[in-house]
Amino acid sequence: MAKELKDLTKRADNYSQWYNDLVIKADLAEQSAVRGCMVIKPYGYAIWEKMQHHLDMMFKETGVQNAYFPLLIPKSFLSREADHVKGFAKECAVVTHYRLKTDPNGTGVIVDPEARLEEELIIRPTSETIIWNTYRNWINSYRDLPLLVNQWANVFRWEMRTRMFLRTAEFLWQEGHTAHATSEEAQAKAIEMLNVYADFAEKYMALPVVKGVKTANERFAGALETYTIEAMMQDGKALQSGTSHFLGQNFAKAFDVKFINKENQLDYVWATSWGVSTRLMGALIMTHSDDNGLVLPPKLAPIQVVIIPIYKNEEQLKVVDAKVQPIVDNLKKLGISVKYDNADNKRPGFKFADYELKGVPVRLVMGARDIENNTVEVMRRDTLEKETVSLDGIEDTVVNLLNDIQQGIYNKALKHREECTYTVDTWEDFKAQIEKGGFVLAHWDGTTETEEKIKEETKATIRCIPMDSKPEEGKCIYTGKPSHRRVIFARNY
Amino acid sequence: MAKELKDLTKRADNYSQWYNDLVIKADLAEQSAVRGCMVIKPYGYAIWEKMQHHLDMMFKETGVQNAYFPLLIPKSFLSREADHVKGFAKECAVVTHYRLKTDPNGTGVIVDPEARLEEELIIRPTSETIIWNTYRNWINSYRDLPLLVNQWANVFRWEMRTRMFLRTAEFLWQEGHTAHATSEEAQAKAIEMLNVYADFAEKYMALPVVKGVKTANERFAGALETYTIEAMMQDGKALQSGTSHFLGQNFAKAFDVKFINKENQLDYVWATSWGVSTRLMGALIMTHSDDNGLVLPPKLAPIQVVIIPIYKNEEQLKVVDAKVQPIVDNLKKLGISVKYDNADNKRPGFKFADYELKGVPVRLVMGARDIENNTVEVMRRDTLEKETVSLDGIEDTVVNLLNDIQQGIYNKALKHREECTYTVDTWEDFKAQIEKGGFVLAHWDGTTETEEKIKEETKATIRCIPMDSKPEEGKCIYTGKPSHRRVIFARNY
Repeated sequence: MAKELKDLTKRADNYSQWYNDLVIKADLAEQSAVRGCMVIKPYGYAIWEKMQHHLDMMFKETGVQNAYFPLLIPKSFLSREADHVKGFAKECAVVTHYRLKTDPNGTGVIVDPEARLEEELIIRPTSETIIWNTYRNWINSYRDLPLLVNQWANVFRWEMRTRMFLRTAEFLWQEGHTAHATSEEAQAKAIEMLNVYADFAEKYMALPVVKGVKTANERFAGALETYTIEAMMQDGKALQSGTSHFLGQNFAKAFDVKFINKENQLDYVWATSWGVSTRLMGALIMTHSDDNGLVLPPKLAPIQVVIIPIYKNEEQLKVVDAKVQPIVDNLKKLGISVKYDNADNKRPGFKFADYELKGVPVRLVMGARDIENNTVEVMRRDTLEKETVSLDGIEDTVVNLLNDIQQGIYNKALKHREECTYTVDTWEDFKAQIEKGGFVLAHWDGTTETEEKIKEETKATIRCIPMDSKPEEGKCIYTGKPSHRRVIFARNY
Repeated sequence: MAKELKDLTKRADNYSQWYNDLVIKADLAEQSAVRGCMVIKPYGYAIWEKMQHHLDMMFKETGVQNAYFPLLIPKSFLSREADHVKGFAKECAVVTHYRLKTDPNGTGVIVDPEARLEEELIIRPTSETIIWNTYRNWINSYRDLPLLVNQWANVFRWEMRTRMFLRTAEFLWQEGHTAHATSEEAQAKAIEMLNVYADFAEKYMALPVVKGVKTANERFAGALETYTIEAMMQDGKALQSGTSHFLGQNFAKAFDVKFINKENQLDYVWATSWGVSTRLMGALIMTHSDDNGLVLPPKLAPIQVVIIPIYKNEEQLKVVDAKVQPIVDNLKKLGISVKYDNADNKRPGFKFADYELKGVPVRLVMGARDIENNTVEVMRRDTLEKETVSLDGIEDTVVNLLNDIQQGIYNKALKHREECTYTVDTWEDFKAQIEKGGFVLAHWDGTTETEEKIKEETKATIRCIPMDSKPEEGKCIYTGKPSHRRVIFARNY
């Protein structure tokens, strides 16, 4: 492991390789035998479980309930909503048969040609179609609304270029699907859930995000409006971290979901959908980590505190063990996840490097001199600062330090984003800045044509029209046509 | 809903129809548009979530960590273990293509023939193959063992005859996959996890189970030994509720997973796997519920206590509201899930029937006279007994009642199983008893041939060789050959 750490590529040398190395070396995930699909290893999954836990509680506080819908979707369902099928048809995994049989000419198994499905089934790339087909029977009257349902599930999109967590063929996510009596209520719900995502990102992941609206060109396939949270990675590229969609009546019309409103009229139901995925793991890793390994926000760290003894012999270890045990007990009582690593088959230096690589926020080291002095050495992972402190009130010290780290890495990421956000008014400056990285606030004429040309020439996309941006008259950096508001351009993951 | 309740088939009239009705009417699940796949509705899913929560904690207490492996398995992996492929090939959903395209002759989409996979992918029916292929890179030495990993996932088996929760093409489950340095350790782990399942069933589901060993014929495809927990439903049929397998070195050999043992020798790794699924929902429903609807064990009930006000006017309701609020607050502080239903668009009688149908364990009803007398009417769902009690110490009353119900329904189910377990020594008695139902303890000669003939003639299978059964000399009820132990025969779900 010490050797593995040495092999970790430096961010300055190759940021992309650093990320790939880190995912592997910190035991978060690895490629599987199936193209584009990853194995999420126990340490990575433990972080994802913590994300799920907090998100799920936040959803439930808004009145959302969980449910589960089928993995497979009849092919014909996809075609019902024209934009939706256009968006997903090219990346669908298709089930055509339901049986294998022994290969008569060999030793293995072959697909049984007699077990061909009448209608092919698609592995869900997202579940709007199967869910709205189900909602038809659940909704009759305004009294059945709103319907606020979420599912935690795996989905599949046959991506050509994949990267662990950031873009994989199969990924884990949650998808919320709500049904409403009015357009206003549905739009408000889409924004409410975007705010939940932003709160989660900021409070738990220590990830500052920009809330905004996607351009027509970047909307979810089948949505009237897509809201997004955009984060900036350390290399200045953007990462779309969660989206919430106002779907209008598109899916209700496609699946004939009508209700009797308060005025006793039949109308189509209004919809939202919203999702975040294991992609958030990629955002988490890329935002905070450094050349020594992961840096995890304390609120999501599987191990928040590690305690390592330094000793020369069995007798010394026993003394340290006895001193450490009550600290472990007290920290656990405070709900802190703590590991006392007194395993004797690894040297302290190896342990130090390993827990740094794994991003454990706080490390305590206790040796013979500490016992004498009633002290302990405390290291915080984010800054790598060490300090020897008194054991009196060590629990408070640790709690305060965990809070400091949570806030500190958020502040650092926010500062980085602010420093790497530029306001640009000419095409030359725009191109130069995009090449250097960061978020570029610029005027745009509002057309898809211009958006696509800018992308072709600079690889920059419009990440969003920020929700908190102020009206400002200006000229499109590309066409010089009038614009009333700046949008955020960036290269992105 | 009151109407719906009236339509619930009675158990005595048609037990099977009663079950199907109940799943629908209590809003637990429904059939989807995809053959054999169900939609788990929010109320049903809330019960499953509680099961997951407790099981997951119990697994983690034994040192198990969660991870996630791919949904899709290369077809060739299945063939590697001969028995395994025999067991699952006939029910595999097969992915053959990765893209759809617009139908040139129509309006929909068709499978793009140019996007055919070189090797077909199977939707996992279980994950031994993909997991052991992964373990090859995780395990080098005895120091890497044991490896204790679980995943919560969806799996797919193309079943011809499906029933909601009991047997569906797609189902949700957990599958644990452990790797060990010795046969003894792996066998002990398989039994340890069976004990976890039995404890969960008894303590949380209030479901008494018989722990036992499966016959060779009923073993998991690829296992050397399958352990099972078997429960008895109200109609006397058995329901296999969880299994744990000792896999020997079969999968290690199939996927070449070797390790250096303490003696510095290369050896194949020893394996277990174990799983429970949404089938447990079926067991839960069929064990405790009655002609009025669900009966849920308090520990798994999404709503443990419902409080319903009786009032003539707005003014009276306000008085009741004020009286109820502190009770609600106090119960919540005790960790009890409580719902105060003072909605005025439904009559009390409707609410009573609805919460009975949904199996809410405790109902409190408070009216004007109760306010005068400082009392409340308490009903327990399991026995439907009502009692008017003092509001003083009502929280204790409720807590005690929840405990009583949890224990009471377990005792009732255990008594039923004991009363419906028969010891039989002749073939005539055996056939007659199997026809009447229940568990039949009988001697068997130990051969698969006899087991299969008995099944053909009576539809009874050997559920297990109970772990706590005592050696007893006797003669096989079918062949008269010598037998040293009784086994449990029953018809089953």
